[in-house]
Formats: sequence, structure tokens, C-alpha cells
Amino acid sequence: MLEELKKQVLAANLMLPQYNLVKFTWGNVSGIDREKNLIVIKPSGVPYEELTIDKLVVLDLEGNIVEGDLRPSSDTPTHIELYKRYKDIGGIVHTHSTWATIWAQASKEMPALGTTHADHFYGNIPCTRKLTEAEIEGDYEGNTGKVIIETLGDREVMAIPGVLVSCHAPFTWGKTPKDAVVNSVVLEETCNMAYHTVTLNKEIESLDQYLLDKHYYRKHGSNAYYGQK
Amino acid sequence: MLEELKKQVLAANLMLPQYNLVKFTWGNVSGIDREKNLIVIKPSGVPYEELTIDKLVVLDLEGNIVEGDLRPSSDTPTHIELYKRYKDIGGIVHTHSTWATIWAQASKEMPALGTTHADHFYGNIPCTRKLTEAEIEGDYEGNTGKVIIETLGDREVMAIPGVLVSCHAPFTWGKTPKDAVVNSVVLEETCNMAYHTVTLNKEIESLDQYLLDKHYYRKHGSNAYYGQK
Amino acid sequence: MLEELKKQVLAANLMLPQYNLVKFTWGNVSGIDREKNLIVIKPSGVPYEELTIDKLVVLDLEGNIVEGDLRPSSDTPTHIELYKRYKDIGGIVHTHSTWATIWAQASKEMPALGTTHADHFYGNIPCTRKLTEAEIEGDYEGNTGKVIIETLGDREVMAIPGVLVSCHAPFTWGKTPKDAVVNSVVLEETCNMAYHTVTLNKEIESLDQYLLDKHYYRKHGSNAYYGQK
Amino acid sequence: MLEELKKQVLAANLMLPQYNLVKFTWGNVSGIDREKNLIVIKPSGVPYEELTIDKLVVLDLEGNIVEGDLRPSSDTPTHIELYKRYKDIGGIVHTHSTWATIWAQASKEMPALGTTHADHFYGNIPCTRKLTEAEIEGDYEGNTGKVIIETLGDREVMAIPGVLVSCHAPFTWGKTPKDAVVNSVVLEETCNMAYHTVTLNKEIESLDQYLLDKHYYRKHGSNAYYGQK
Repeated sequence: MLEELKKQVLAANLMLPQYNLVKFTWGNVSGIDREKNLIVIKPSGVPYEELTIDKLVVLDLEGNIVEGDLRPSSDTPTHIELYKRYKDIGGIVHTHSTWATIWAQASKEMPALGTTHADHFYGNIPCTRKLTEAEIEGDYEGNTGKVIIETLGDREVMAIPGVLVSCHAPFTWGKTPKDAVVNSVVLEETCNMAYHTVTLNKEIESLDQYLLDKHYYRKHGSNAYYGQK
Repeated sequence: MLEELKKQVLAANLMLPQYNLVKFTWGNVSGIDREKNLIVIKPSGVPYEELTIDKLVVLDLEGNIVEGDLRPSSDTPTHIELYKRYKDIGGIVHTHSTWATIWAQASKEMPALGTTHADHFYGNIPCTRKLTEAEIEGDYEGNTGKVIIETLGDREVMAIPGVLVSCHAPFTWGKTPKDAVVNSVVLEETCNMAYHTVTLNKEIESLDQYLLDKHYYRKHGSNAYYGQK
Repeated sequence: MLEELKKQVLAANLMLPQYNLVKFTWGNVSGIDREKNLIVIKPSGVPYEELTIDKLVVLDLEGNIVEGDLRPSSDTPTHIELYKRYKDIGGIVHTHSTWATIWAQASKEMPALGTTHADHFYGNIPCTRKLTEAEIEGDYEGNTGKVIIETLGDREVMAIPGVLVSCHAPFTWGKTPKDAVVNSVVLEETCNMAYHTVTLNKEIESLDQYLLDKHYYRKHGSNAYYGQK
Repeated sequence: MLEELKKQVLAANLMLPQYNLVKFTWGNVSGIDREKNLIVIKPSGVPYEELTIDKLVVLDLEGNIVEGDLRPSSDTPTHIELYKRYKDIGGIVHTHSTWATIWAQASKEMPALGTTHADHFYGNIPCTRKLTEAEIEGDYEGNTGKVIIETLGDREVMAIPGVLVSCHAPFTWGKTPKDAVVNSVVLEETCNMAYHTVTLNKEIESLDQYLLDKHYYRKHGSNAYYGQK
């Protein structure tokens, strides 16, 4: 079942080591079939070089395993929370990529400081509050999803397709699993640039709104003119 | 038409991923035939691994497409402004390379701090002012070219063949498309060195003029003695 | 003798250049057979590309060579001190990996700042005091082991399987030689992240204990639920 | 003539791109035959991938070309000054490697902060004073050699086989051309570590002399016990 989605999820997972976003088994990508309301996700702790299509796990949105012999990623409840709340999301990525994790560990929103950022993300990348002791000791991974939702609220999540979880690491998403990985790559690079920009010029502030608008809408929406039609 | 120039422009574009100056489709290189007043440039949003000579776009200096089925780079109007104003320029590169973009985002001129810089660039790499809201909402890419020209003025642009566009990223140029890419590589490395030099020693200042002269003219001009005759 | 252990020690040594933890001949991995009380260790100063199973050195816990034609690593007395004191250790790694060495040179405990750290290390990575002149001029490598033991004391060393030796570099350990190398890779990455986190946000403090508990016990102990059963 | 030395000099030059110490044609290695008082050096501006044994240049210690069709490296007079003054030197390397150049541009002595440094260099790596305008406008490359000699004086140059030239870049040396390159690799890595150590802990000071002695003499001199006999 879901053969096409599984291929996409496998390919997207294999992009993580290719783009140097993960070490060992860290990180996971999932995708969703919105008609069947089923998700496909990487199994927990399986090395990328051993990952094959038949090792992927299929679950419903209550977290029940529908297909697969292996345990799903331990972060699965976080993915499910986001899929349930935001209906436009087609794929989700979680990594501990170096620069995005640095901003998450610093518990800082990552500011939009240039057009590299604005080409992809329509504003600062938010950082969640810390989870409370009760949230951590309870349904930790589900509560990680809930604190992301608390942070994002009703905003258009496809315009800023990523978040930093305080003391933890980033999550990104996209229309497809591959799009979500591309957003992880861009988040990693913009976090790298932003670290060095703010340490080079401590007075620097987020981009003017009109430059953000210009670059974002140059690539997104009905008036976009970047790329081929 | 312009087969030789197209080969040069293709080869120069392919140097961008090779020298780690771009991710995905970011960045573009163009070249100009000064006799025919035609430029050849990368198409917009095409991945480097899919780039072939027949996908390049030929335009005149009014921005009309003379040959090619694809849209040219969205930065084409910036290239055209520079070609029209500075007649010695034979090739132009735009990237979002990490270290040069960091200086651009910090809105700082990149100082000449050592002979690595002086061997290639005859002085600090200037940074433009920010564009105004009107300039951004108008002919944005053309205005990016105009603010570069405002910054450079009548200086000998081949002596300092690069500029940082505030909040954006670098442009470099050269006698040929390949030269322009070499200047991008050197700019990236000198921006890396300069970031760490000024954070290591906050009192450091730009090179003495005579050391700048010595290294620059060791490699450039009629008295150069670096390399083979 | 000890053929299986030798294979493990050889493979673990070869992981050091693969994971970019060493330059030239820097670094060494050992393993122990707890039944025979014999250790297998890399010979001193032999390049990794020339390392073969027959070049490994077998020693008893008094440091006597039991098998092998080459001198063992000069750090062998440090390994032996740790094996004698902590009976759970099955493999030990010493490298001068860049980021861990930076923290060691700074003589700073490396704080647990995020879940990347907590997934592997149950708390801050301690840094030893400096050795005294007498300790250095005496049995230096043995005294390096003793100051590590002084630093760790009776703690559960498998929960924080690494230490920074002041002005020197890291040692890590694990149940097996391979586990010890994995811990070196994670230590290197978390030291990288921690450097940038504390320079980005000078007010940052170590993780809350409950988040440390959650992530550590998600992967370790009888209630672990990360990975496959 | 000098076939064996030429092989060594060629191999050592090719190590520069292999160890990521140079970009394009930056950098050069030379070697000396102390019986014939002839040096072999890289030609100026020749790319490493085009470098062959017959392109190397042979000169005497007055700088006269004895063999070779190409111009020698423009830094040849610096090499010659060092060979003439310090008779133990068998090979010399000049690069603009990133981290060593950062310290040179910062005009700072690079402190010995750990055993990685002490294993190879018996103390801080000195930085020259700036050259005067007259020195730069005169015999610049020869004066670069002279200011290095002024900095090093009568010290045992093989114990600290490298120097930083202010506003410029490093030179290293060794018993052979290969040894000199190894010293460049170690200098680059220790400069990287030192930058981050002093920015992480601003109170840090150079190593205690007895730890410097211990590590240096563990690897050098008649009582060395690192490596194989």
C-alpha cells in the first residue's frame, strides 16, 4: 500500500545524510496520504544505509501501526500532532542539524537577516517555550507537537515551514517529504549565516518587511517570477 | 550563435557547485559578447546538474530574449545594468555564498586585512546602502544594479571586482565568466578570513596602502611578476 | 589469540579517520577481554592506512606486552588505569578531535545544552584539573589516567562515557571499542554545538534535569523506547 | 639533476591541495640539497593539477636559475634567506591556509594552548612585525625572509618550525619538504583550535613549561618514546 508515498519518504530520508543534516540514525522524515489519512515514517534507530522501502512504517493518525514490522520513529507523535492540526502539510522532517540545533539550544528565534532567508521563509523562524516538567514526563513527543502548535497558532504554516524546539532541535515541513527536506537544508544554511551575522554586527535587525515581501513573493504565490512556469 | 561564449558561461556556471558557492539553484553566471552586445545567462531555477548549453538564454542589453526557450535568471536586470555601465566587464557572477553573504547581511564593507585579499582585490570590498521601499517595489533587480553603480561610481571596477549588496549577497565580475567565478571563490575565502580576523583582534585595521600596492601590482599590470609571462 | 577482539579494535581504529576525528597518527582505540584481562591497542605512531590486525599490540593489565612486535600507543598506561578502575568499560578511545580539544584546552566542563547531548550523555562532560609538574614529570600517562579517575570518582561512568583532560584532549569509552568511537563522534558534535550555543547566548545554562532524564532514559535502560527491541 | 629531491618537492607540493591548505595556485614548497647548495621550488602560478617534475625550478643560493624553463615562485627570495641563515632546514612551505592566515592577519603570536601544539611545536608560534614601507617597496620577498630571521634570531628553529608573517600568512619548514608540509597541516589545525579556545575562555594562557617539555620531548630528541624505534 501507499507505494508512491513510500518511495517519496524513502528518497527524502536518504537526502538527510546526503545533505549532511544527520549523524548515525539521528533524524527522520514522514509523509502523509491525505485521502487515506495514513502516514509513512522512518523506523526508529535504523541506519540510513540499511533503510529500505519495506522497513518504513505506516500509521493512522491515532498512532496505530497499519503496516510494518518495525517500531516507528520515537518522534512519531510529534509528526501526528502537526499533521492533524495543519492540513496543508504533506511531509515533515526532524533532524539535529548543527546550526539549527545551536539556535534551538540557545532558545532563540532565528531572525530573517537577508534575502537567502526571505526567498524561502516569510519571517523569523520561531522558537518554542521550554516544555514543563509535567509535559516532559507525560506524553513527551505528543507534547512537543502541542508546544509547536501553541507557538505557531493560526499562522499560515506553509509560509514559515519550520520551527525550533527550545533545548532540542528543528522540525520543518512542506507540501511533500522532499520539500520538507529542502526546507531543512535552507534552515541549516540560514542558521549558519545568522549566527555569524549577529556575532559580526550586534546591532543588526530583522529585514525590512518590504524586502521580505519582495523576495518571498518573487518565489511564491501567483505573482512569482523565479524559476520556470 | 555565440557558441564559444555559451561554452564559457556553461563551464563557469558549473564551477559554482564545484567550488561550493551555491546550494540547489542559487546563483548564476553570465557572459557578454561586446561586439554583438548580447549576453548569455543561466536560466532561472534550473538545477546545475540539469544545465546544458541549449538551456542558456541569450538577451540583448534591453533585456529582450534573443534566443532560448527558458526564462533567464531573475537577476538578469542587475547583470544588464552592470554590463551597460562598466565596459570592461566580460562576465558576472551572483551567489549566496556563505561568508560573503554574512558580510552582506551584516551590511559591512569587508576590509582588506592581508595579502590574500591584496593579491586579488585592490582595497576593501564595498557594501551598498539598503534599497528603499520604492526601489524594492519598483524594478527591484534593475535597482539592485543601480545601487551597485551608485556605490562603485567611477572607480576602476576591475581593480575591486566585487561588491556586497546590503541584506542580500555578493556580485563579482571579471574579464571573462571564469575570471568572475575565480573572484567569487577568493571573495568567499577572504570574507571567511576577515570574519575571524576581526573577531580575534578587534583593533585590527585595513592594510597599509603600500602593502596593498605591492601585492596587487605583483599580480596585476605591466610590472606584474607573479606567474609565467 | 583474541582474534575477535582484534577485529573489533582494528575496525574501531579505522573509524577515527573515517569520522574525521584524527589527523596523521593522532588518536588510538583499545578494547579489553575481561575474562583474560588482556587489552588490545593500536601501536604507537603507525598511520591508519598501514594499520593491520597483526600490528595490534596485546598487553596485560600491568602493561606487559603479551603479543606484538611493535610498541603500543604511548597512551597505553592511561587506558590501563581506566580499565582497572571501571569494570564496565569494554573499549577506550583517545583523540585530539577539534571541538572536544577546544573545550579541553579552555579547561572547561562541557555543559549539557540540548537533547542531542542528553540522548547520549547523562550530564555535563567533566574536565580534569591540570596535572602538577610532579605528575607530568613522573608517570605522565599513568597519572593522566589517575586524574581522570579523581575527576570521575565513583560515578556511573557508562552514563557519561567521556572526559576532557585539561590542556590536552578527550577520552571516551563504551561497552565495546565501537561504542567508544560512537561516543567520540557524539562528543565532537556536541562540543561544536555547545561552543556556538554559549557564544550565541551567554546566559544559557545546562538542561533541566527532567529533560536530561527524559532523553537519556528514552535511549538507555529497561524503559528505553528508542530503536528496535 | 637532483632527481630524488625533485620527486620529494613534487610530492610535497601535491600534498598542499590534498590537505586543503591551498586554493588555486596559492602556496609553494621547496627543498634544498645541502651538498650542492641548490634548491628546487615550484614554478610561479602553475596549477597543482598541471605540476610535473620537469616544471620544477632549480636555483642556487644567489637566486640564479640553474635548471628549468619556468619562473620560480615569486616567494623564492624568502625561501633562500631562510635556507642561508638556518642550516638545519631541508624544506620550506608557504601557504595562505585559512586559520594560520587569520592569526597572521590579526598580527598575533599563536599561543601554545594544548598538547596537540606541544607534540609538534616547542612553544608559541611567533608573528613578525609589519614590514616598513621601504622594506616593501625594496626587495620585498627578500625582506620578508629577513624579518622572519629578525623574529627568530638565534633560536633553535627546528623546535618551532613555523612563523606567521604579519598581515600576510605562514611559513613552515622541516628536515625534508614533506616534514615541512606536515608542520603546515599541524599549524593550520592548532591555529583553528587556538582561535576557538581563546574566544571560549578569554583568561586562558599558554601551557605550563613542564607540560610543553613533556609532550615535545615525548616525540623529539634522544628520549622520545612516541612511535616506533
